[in-house]
Amino acid sequence: MTEDALLGGLVRLLQPRAGYRAATDPVLLAAASAAKPGARVLDAGCGAGAAMLCLAARVPGLETHGLELQPPYAGLARRNADLNGVAAAIWDGDLFGPPAELRRIGFDIVMTNPPYFDAFGAPSPDPGRDAARRATGGRSAAEWTAAAVARLRSGGRFATIHLAAKLPEILAGLAGAGDIAVLPLQSRAGRDAKRVIVTARKGARGPFRIAPPLIIHDGETHRRDADDFSTAADAVLRRGAPLRF
Amino acid sequence: MTEDALLGGLVRLLQPRAGYRAATDPVLLAAASAAKPGARVLDAGCGAGAAMLCLAARVPGLETHGLELQPPYAGLARRNADLNGVAAAIWDGDLFGPPAELRRIGFDIVMTNPPYFDAFGAPSPDPGRDAARRATGGRSAAEWTAAAVARLRSGGRFATIHLAAKLPEILAGLAGAGDIAVLPLQSRAGRDAKRVIVTARKGARGPFRIAPPLIIHDGETHRRDADDFSTAADAVLRRGAPLRF
Repeated sequence: MTEDALLGGLVRLLQPRAGYRAATDPVLLAAASAAKPGARVLDAGCGAGAAMLCLAARVPGLETHGLELQPPYAGLARRNADLNGVAAAIWDGDLFGPPAELRRIGFDIVMTNPPYFDAFGAPSPDPGRDAARRATGGRSAAEWTAAAVARLRSGGRFATIHLAAKLPEILAGLAGAGDIAVLPLQSRAGRDAKRVIVTARKGARGPFRIAPPLIIHDGETHRRDADDFSTAADAVLRRGAPLRF
Repeated sequence: MTEDALLGGLVRLLQPRAGYRAATDPVLLAAASAAKPGARVLDAGCGAGAAMLCLAARVPGLETHGLELQPPYAGLARRNADLNGVAAAIWDGDLFGPPAELRRIGFDIVMTNPPYFDAFGAPSPDPGRDAARRATGGRSAAEWTAAAVARLRSGGRFATIHLAAKLPEILAGLAGAGDIAVLPLQSRAGRDAKRVIVTARKGARGPFRIAPPLIIHDGETHRRDADDFSTAADAVLRRGAPLRF
């Protein structure tokens, strides 16, 4: 187990040394979630709680919920919420058959950083990582997206971060939503976007938009001994700025 | 009627002074079509022929076809082909019920710059423009895309330019294609992409990609008396460079 610092130290996160480890993705996801103070928020597949804790650090008075399939990660999310002084309800359960009590809540915000790997890819030698990869239970990104949107109240806001390659599936899963906006995330200028953030509003009808990309790193190539984050990425990742697009 | 110059004068285009007028979009579309010399190409909804003539100017020995619903535009496409010394077959007909002889051809390349406006939008005071707007016959961008892909041989390449807002529909219409790539077109840096170019390959299975945007104009705002094209856009629009992404 390691304790890592997110948002320039504002959030402390215990996570296993092996297995899935939160890095920049949940921080970006939380920054893109347009929660207002006091909003009722669900982090669907919350893992160790990185995204929900980053959002709670930026927006005061949230009612914070996490849903997690793997009990060790759910337990870790509870420990991390305590460690950060956040009163969060962590639900053990499956997004594809959530606890009845959770189903009765209509969330203002649902955000999700789904397992990135296909359920039937090659097994990983690491059991924790392997479970995270398989945590979609063979469900597509479209099904995952639709199941997350189902937890929103009408007018509630959805945000996800995923592989850019999954955008067509995510859009298919957003059939009941509008005001869809895509933020391409390029690791560097001139490169394909490897990731996307997609936001949407349940029951809305505004047009689909593609924002200018967020460039994460400056320079052409990685320089050792430096994160070389771009100014825009640094503001979000280290200084808690919201990601508006 | 006016005679306009495209590709820095390489293509001459007669078009009506009123109604739909080709500007940069068909030039960008042709630049994104990965035709090899000798390829069999269809411009689906060719209008006055701008896209197919730009492609023919860049790639030698094409077998060039255009399909156009509105007879005056089909006639103009024939005149423009003659004017540019291109031997093109212009078919009068509907993409949603193409001539039987055309249906028997499996194209290497299908490119399409569909009518941008919804069929049931407010009528335009100009009848030509109005007809172009309504030329989808109430069909969605998904249906238009699928009908265009249907004209490809297996392994053939599709390219379209459309409003960015239509990307979800275009992707839905590309269910039978892979190697899908999206090029966001931003009028200026820092702005949403208003248009997209989408390319795909029929029957392929490669992952979906989002390329870095093409920025069309330099600077923050429009300067009068200058097109202020970016270097990358100028190479494509005025000097006939291909648009690779």
